[in-house]
Formats: sequence, C-alpha cells, structure tokens
Amino acid sequence: MNTERNDNDVADWWSTEIIDMEPGKIFFRGHAIQDLIGNVSFPQMIWLMTRGDLPSEGHAHLLEAALVAAVDHGPQAPSIAAARMAVTCGLPLNNAMASAVNFLGDVHGGAGEQAVELYLEIDAAGGPDHAGDVIARWKAERTNYMPGFGHRFHKPVDPRAPRLLALVDAAAAEGEIEGKFAAIARAVQDELSRGREVGVPMNIDGATAVIFAELGFSAPLARGIFCLSRSVGILAHAWEQTQQGGRNKGPTPPAYRWTYTGSARRDQDA
Amino acid sequence: MNTERNDNDVADWWSTEIIDMEPGKIFFRGHAIQDLIGNVSFPQMIWLMTRGDLPSEGHAHLLEAALVAAVDHGPQAPSIAAARMAVTCGLPLNNAMASAVNFLGDVHGGAGEQAVELYLEIDAAGGPDHAGDVIARWKAERTNYMPGFGHRFHKPVDPRAPRLLALVDAAAAEGEIEGKFAAIARAVQDELSRGREVGVPMNIDGATAVIFAELGFSAPLARGIFCLSRSVGILAHAWEQTQQGGRNKGPTPPAYRWTYTGSARRDQDA
Amino acid sequence: MNTERNDNDVADWWSTEIIDMEPGKIFFRGHAIQDLIGNVSFPQMIWLMTRGDLPSEGHAHLLEAALVAAVDHGPQAPSIAAARMAVTCGLPLNNAMASAVNFLGDVHGGAGEQAVELYLEIDAAGGPDHAGDVIARWKAERTNYMPGFGHRFHKPVDPRAPRLLALVDAAAAEGEIEGKFAAIARAVQDELSRGREVGVPMNIDGATAVIFAELGFSAPLARGIFCLSRSVGILAHAWEQTQQGGRNKGPTPPAYRWTYTGSARRDQDA
Amino acid sequence: MNTERNDNDVADWWSTEIIDMEPGKIFFRGHAIQDLIGNVSFPQMIWLMTRGDLPSEGHAHLLEAALVAAVDHGPQAPSIAAARMAVTCGLPLNNAMASAVNFLGDVHGGAGEQAVELYLEIDAAGGPDHAGDVIARWKAERTNYMPGFGHRFHKPVDPRAPRLLALVDAAAAEGEIEGKFAAIARAVQDELSRGREVGVPMNIDGATAVIFAELGFSAPLARGIFCLSRSVGILAHAWEQTQQGGRNKGPTPPAYRWTYTGSARRDQDA
Repeated sequence: MNTERNDNDVADWWSTEIIDMEPGKIFFRGHAIQDLIGNVSFPQMIWLMTRGDLPSEGHAHLLEAALVAAVDHGPQAPSIAAARMAVTCGLPLNNAMASAVNFLGDVHGGAGEQAVELYLEIDAAGGPDHAGDVIARWKAERTNYMPGFGHRFHKPVDPRAPRLLALVDAAAAEGEIEGKFAAIARAVQDELSRGREVGVPMNIDGATAVIFAELGFSAPLARGIFCLSRSVGILAHAWEQTQQGGRNKGPTPPAYRWTYTGSARRDQDA
Repeated sequence: MNTERNDNDVADWWSTEIIDMEPGKIFFRGHAIQDLIGNVSFPQMIWLMTRGDLPSEGHAHLLEAALVAAVDHGPQAPSIAAARMAVTCGLPLNNAMASAVNFLGDVHGGAGEQAVELYLEIDAAGGPDHAGDVIARWKAERTNYMPGFGHRFHKPVDPRAPRLLALVDAAAAEGEIEGKFAAIARAVQDELSRGREVGVPMNIDGATAVIFAELGFSAPLARGIFCLSRSVGILAHAWEQTQQGGRNKGPTPPAYRWTYTGSARRDQDA
Repeated sequence: MNTERNDNDVADWWSTEIIDMEPGKIFFRGHAIQDLIGNVSFPQMIWLMTRGDLPSEGHAHLLEAALVAAVDHGPQAPSIAAARMAVTCGLPLNNAMASAVNFLGDVHGGAGEQAVELYLEIDAAGGPDHAGDVIARWKAERTNYMPGFGHRFHKPVDPRAPRLLALVDAAAAEGEIEGKFAAIARAVQDELSRGREVGVPMNIDGATAVIFAELGFSAPLARGIFCLSRSVGILAHAWEQTQQGGRNKGPTPPAYRWTYTGSARRDQDA
Repeated sequence: MNTERNDNDVADWWSTEIIDMEPGKIFFRGHAIQDLIGNVSFPQMIWLMTRGDLPSEGHAHLLEAALVAAVDHGPQAPSIAAARMAVTCGLPLNNAMASAVNFLGDVHGGAGEQAVELYLEIDAAGGPDHAGDVIARWKAERTNYMPGFGHRFHKPVDPRAPRLLALVDAAAAEGEIEGKFAAIARAVQDELSRGREVGVPMNIDGATAVIFAELGFSAPLARGIFCLSRSVGILAHAWEQTQQGGRNKGPTPPAYRWTYTGSARRDQDA
C-alpha cells in the first residue's frame, strides 16, 4: 500500500510553510510553480523562498545588486582556492562547491551578517547619533574587528561599496526604501574614520548589509544570501580548474615545500 | 615589504581568466565590477562568470527559468532533509548549505548533466531520428535509468517540464535558439513511451537539460547550475528550521526507532 | 628547474611542527614513519600527531577507551542518518563521511568540548566544592543545557559512562592520572541531581570529557577526537547503506509526505 | 504518547545490523558497549563496526599499521591545506575536518581502493603470472595511472611501503594471512618496472591495499579506512593552525597575487 499519508505524526515531523506538493502539482508559498517559471526573476524567487512573499521590482533590484556584487574575490580567497583544489582531487562540481561554501564561516563569510547585527543595534539604540556608543560596546563585548568596514587589499576604497550605496540612495529617493540603514552605516564609517588620516571606508559587506537591513532580511539570511552569491564564483573557478586539469593541486607550486619548525629527528621512543 | 608580485611562478600557479584585481579595482572577465552591479541580472552574472561573455536577454531569460524551476522539491529530498537536520546540530547556514549541496551527487543531482550528455550523443549521432539507437546503447553501456524522463512522484506529468518547454519553444520561434535539442528531447520521450499505456514524460531535469544544451552549456555545468538553483531551497529550509528550533533533529519522530536486523546479543568474545 | 625550495616566504607560509619530509623520508614530530608503523598503536599516533609527544601505555589506553565508546548512536542521530542518505545520492564514502562529520556542530558534537570547558572552569575556581557556583554562572551566562549530563534516551543511566569512569578510577588508583577531573565531574553530577527524585547522571560526553581533561587535551580537541571516533560509525553506516542500495533515500518512507502549514494556494501575483 | 515503536514501516526504513539500543543499553553487532570499552582496541572496533565480527590480534595489528601509516602527507596535500585554511575562516574543527575529508576523492584518496580492485582482478585472472595482462587491460579500459605504484615526490622509494610489506610478510610467515596479494603486488611492481632504469616501486597506497586485500576488506572500504586515517593528520593540522591563528589564510602569502590570463578590460556591454 502506497497511499499518501499526510496527516500523522511522521508527516508533522517535517512540516513546512515553503512547499506543498501532490502528484503533478508543486506550490511554493502558495504559488503554482508553472506561474513562477518565466514570470519571476531568480532574485524574486530567492526572496519568495526565504521570506514567504514576492518583493516589489525595486526591492528585487537591490537584492539582485547584492547578489551580483559578491560572487568572487579571486583565488587568494580560501573558499575559491578550496574549490579549485577540490576538483583536482577528483571531485565533481557539487562536492567542490560544498567544500568551498563550507568555508564561509564567521571570519570568511560572516561579516555581512555581523554588519546587519551592528546596524540593527544602532537602530535599536536610537539611530546614527548612537553609532559611537554601540561601536564602543561592540569592541568591548565582541571584537575589535568592525564588520563591513576597511579592507586589507582594496585601498583606499572597495569599488563595490560606493556603487551599491548609490543604488541604495536612488531607491531611497524614489521611496522604495526608507534609507535609515544607509545613514547608520555612514555614521559608522565617520565614527571609525574620526581622527585618522586615512579613513576606514565601508566595504562590500558593509554595503550589502545596508541593503539587507533596508529590505528587512534577518541577519543570518545576510550570510545565507552571500553564500548563494559566492557560490557563483566558486562554481566558475571550480569549472575553470576542471578545464585546466591538474591532479592533487597543492596550495603552492610543488617545488615550494613547507618550513618545518618542529622537534629534531629522533629515534623511536615508544 | 608587501609589494605586489604578479609575475612569477607562484602567481602563475593560480592563474585564471575570471577575475583581475588591483587595489580599488575588480574586473570580471574584463568588466569593471561597478559596471556590472545594477546593470546585469544575477543570471547574466552567472553566465558571465562561467562562460566568459554576457548573454542576450533572451538567453538569460531561459537560464533564469531553469534557475527558478529547480529550487526545491521538499523535505523528502535527501538534500533538503539534510539541510534541516544540520541546523539543529548547531550549524550556521553556510555549513548547513554545504552539507546539503554535497548530497547533489550523480543520483540526486546528476540527472540534468546526464541528460545533456544524452542529448549531445543523439545530436552527434545525427539527431532525433537516432534517439532509439542512442538510448539502446546508453542502456547497454551505462544504466537503465534514462536521465530526465519519468518521475516517481509526479504522475502523469512533472508540472515544471511543459512550462519550461513552452518557453523553449517560444524562444525558438523568435529565433533566439535553434530548438534542435527540444526536438531531440521529444524524440527521447516518444521512444521511451512507445508501446506503453502510460508514457514516460520528460521531467524537470530533461527540460532544463534542453535549455542548457540549447544555450551551449557543457554537461558538467548543468549540474553546477542546478546546484546554484537548489541552494535556494536548501537555504530556505535551513532557515525555516532554524526558526522552528529543535535540537539534533533525527529523520523520524524520536518515538520511532529503527529495526535491528543484526547478530543476536552475545558475550564479549575478544 | 624544480629544486627544493624550503627557505623562503612561500614555504614559511605553510610552516608546521607536525611533519618533515624529503624524498624517501617522512618524519612525524621527529619520528621516522618506519619507526612508528607497527610499533605504535593508532591511539598513540593520534596523540603524537595532535600533541607532539608519545603517550604512556596507560594514557593511550584511556584515550583508546574514549575512541571506542563514541563510535555510533544509531540512525536517529542526524549525522548517521545523513551518512546513509548521502550514499544513496550517488556519493562515494569520503563525501558521505564529510557530509556527516560536518553535522557534529555545537549541539550534536560539542558536548564533550563544552564539558571539558566546564571542568576546567571548576578546577580554576578551586575544585569540586565550587561546582555549584560555576554551574550557576554557566546557566546565567551560557545556557541551561549542562553539557555531559542527562540523556534524553538512556534512562536512568548511559551505559558508557560508568564503564569509562571505572577505567578512569583504575588509572587514578595506579597513579597514571591524578583523578581530579573525575571528582569534579561527580561533583557536577551531585549538584545537578540535588533535590530531584531522578538524578541527572553523567553521560558519554561527560565521561569522555573527564578522560580528555585528565590527559591534558585542550577543549577543542575533545570535539576533534570525538569526530575521529564518530567517523567510524559514520563509515560503517554509509557502507551498510551502500550494500543495502536505494536511490535518493529520504528521511521517511516515501508514502509519508510532510505536513504543509503555509499560505493557501493563490494566483501568481508578481 | 511516546512509547517505543520498533515494529512498523517507519522503523523498517532505517533498519540496520550495526547497532541495537534500548534505554540504558547499547549493542554493537551484538556486543554490549560496556564489554567493548577498555577491552577491544580502536582498530578492532573499526573492524567490528564495518565487518560485523572481531578480528584476531594479528589481523588487527595489520589494520593498525595501515591506519598509522597514512595519517598525513603534509600541507602540500590539498586536503591538509584545506583543513588549515578552513579554521582561519572561523570554522570549528568538525567543519574543517569535513571540508578536508571531502577532498579525498578518486584522485586524492582513491588509489588504495583502486589498487585493491587491481589486485582482485589479477587474483580473479589467475594470480601473479597474469599481472601483465590485467595491467594492459587496465590501461586500455581505465587509465594509464596505475594506482599504488610510483610517487611524484618519494624517489626512489616511499618509506612507508617496505615497512608495511615487511609486516605483511611476517604475518604470512606466521600463517596469519595467506600472502597471495603481496605476491600479486610485487608482480605488478616487477611488471611496471620492466625495462626501466629506475623502477616504479610500490607506494603507500599499493602497500596498504595489500593489507586490505589480505584482510578481506571490500575495495570501497579501503578508501573509507584511509579516510579514518587521514582524518588524524587533518585534525592535527587544523588544530595547529588554530593555535597559529590567522584570518582567511589564502594558499600563498598575500603579496603573491595570481596571474590574470583573461579578456582585456572593456566597457560594460550589457
């Protein structure tokens, strides 16, 4: 017997608001799949799946900008290097992508999420004028790394940030968004740059966090959506490396070994 | 000393055609990032990164349809179940997504790639009229599972396939694509259904494979792009489960244990 | 030119105290590999690699007991279920193992590490008499889940804990270890059970944490070594499932679907 | 209601011969866990879990030698580099280990499994005298890479192989094993070295494959057990890197960038 069994504790264990199915029919958040295919954009679909409703065109446009901006930062990024090395170990693309997305932890992939948290804290504290207080508390209670500001490579300015901010400002001017998180982020930038000869400008994570906060995404989703974006670069590099070939590609050319700093050679002393 | 060193064997070890950077500047495939943000769609960016050029609007529209169509198939899909279980083990979204994307192997995520291979073989053999021969060879040399056709749940028809095919047909009518892989896929469908009371209709993998083949994507990229698409559903479910809570969510309600079929209990015989 | 290049900034980037090599020679922590193979046990090798020296037989015996104890907890454990589902998706064993080990996060795999932290805090606070204070602080500052005590399934007692404690006590009686962390753990057990009809007994994580703390392992290594142990069960289940077969094994029998709790069906409103 | 439900289709979906549990009791392959802890070695436990019975001391000793031999091959190995980079991205040890074990695919981790297959083929063909024929067929049908022989770094000899073979020979002399796979492997070595000035000696994978084949392990388990072994080095390196610190460690020192070989810079042409 193979009749459908939807109404029981086993089915309840996997309850979801996201997808409903019966043979020949699929609904996402109440929308029939055939109504979505060809009619909504991929960013709109991402929004629908993670949020439950469909965004306006203007909101989708901002989300799309964030998705486009963060796809890749080159083979020096650990996740990208991992993806390239993985395929030379014999892995197909799905496993290479998984290995690399796994790397997007608090340090490599968490800055956007943390910047949303920072902005929300400043908003809860009363807005831009309270940036200094919140930053001081952040440094005291969490870390001296201020997520979303400064960049170890892109000096003086991360080219992605001003472009993203310009789109945010345009959307605010058209009333698509409120714009308050752009003001908060700029207050953070001013606060961090105060008294320095060279400022500490917003980077891509600080800028995409403005978009996520303006659009009402929860902080963890900022990381989740960054993972969707970076997956594109990961795929592109894994695929390029597949075509380049190579077996067991190490991090440096094989002639470069590593420096051994451990114990002198000894006899077996077990 | 920290001067740039681009011209040496260490830099060559990581050579790439995808991304070029200098402080304050990022180029993808020759395009400055600030020219891409806000101007190209996310599907166009996926194309640019994996292919090297920007697609036409019509091509991007078809790619977007494939990306939208495949985001999710519900918690019975092993990848989606994995994503939901993972977050209850204490994993943030990036690790949950990685665990789940890893599942998209030959059986769970490879049908699109394999269907592209099948279509290319038929094309190389001379086109739709040769579908039967190629299918026979496929079954003899590879497996009886014909990728992209039939569905264990969606009977009689996978609702995603006809919608995707309609978009393909429309694009062919407008001269955006040639349409020959749609003809090949329909020939496969006819061949597999011959003599059966109930046909073996194209499913989502068979239909997206038509799109990928028409657009000139290599077969492995069909899986790679499917991974990008399914990552959306994976993220949505991981996030929903995070909000639902739970600790160490097992596959079934805890009161259901498992059936033990092994050796009888015995004394330690080491 | 392919001469060895050990003395440069590239080699220094990957400096390590663990392994030294030249063609035909491999040394781990100063020991030639041919002196280790056949002469040291696998647990001794684990110790050597992670700690830098070789343990006494007695210490290795305790580590081995912890490694044996934690290999598996059945298919209801998310990691084990993941391993089994993974192979039915077409993954070879290494990818299935990786997917599953990834699950061993703070909730599923972190209790041993957290219990070591708890014991070390109590030790730093002055020993067993301070268990109550440290527990109170733990609950106030971290969580109400006390790692290493109580078990949702094994009632009244986790059978692994008393056996492990007996080995610890025997080693302490022989002067192999000090035994102070066993006393601390028992003080935690007494404190948590005070005033309850049914106690909150030490579980496997609480007991292996005693071993790790007695042997001087850092808290994070408690999780790392647990991962080595659980990898055995993960491998065994993945392999058993490979032999059982199955394609795209979901969490429940296919006839059980899931309960949809989301939005009613609607027309496309993009 | 939360009574145990073992006898139903949901429990059957997760049937296993490996583990049996009831509250307060755990049995592996019929052995009570408290009888195993402290009484069987970790390699014996690995055997019990994957094979179903307990090995003799002699068999366990050979398995242990294989486990000890393969723990690590230094930071140039992609899996080890991945583990070290992963922790600098903010990942705890379980996620770093998972990322790295994932790398042990056909090329990086499959040689032992493939060598077992090769030996079994030669055995099925009639034994050592048929090595040449089977090698010729292997090269024609599979690949020119002969798994388990030759080494790109360890020249003239991989120091692990002769030590492992000596243990195999000793066990054969004592009647613990038959020794036929050692003869087969030596025949392969002779065949591959015929007519060359410098031979193609057995490497670690070829030697551990002899052990696995002698002990009756299935070929895929050769990879699985290699994963258990290499997990030790992965853990050791991940932990060392954690202690060394670093954030977003790339594959080369940051001053070394990468060589860009792609399209010239252009204006946005979307």
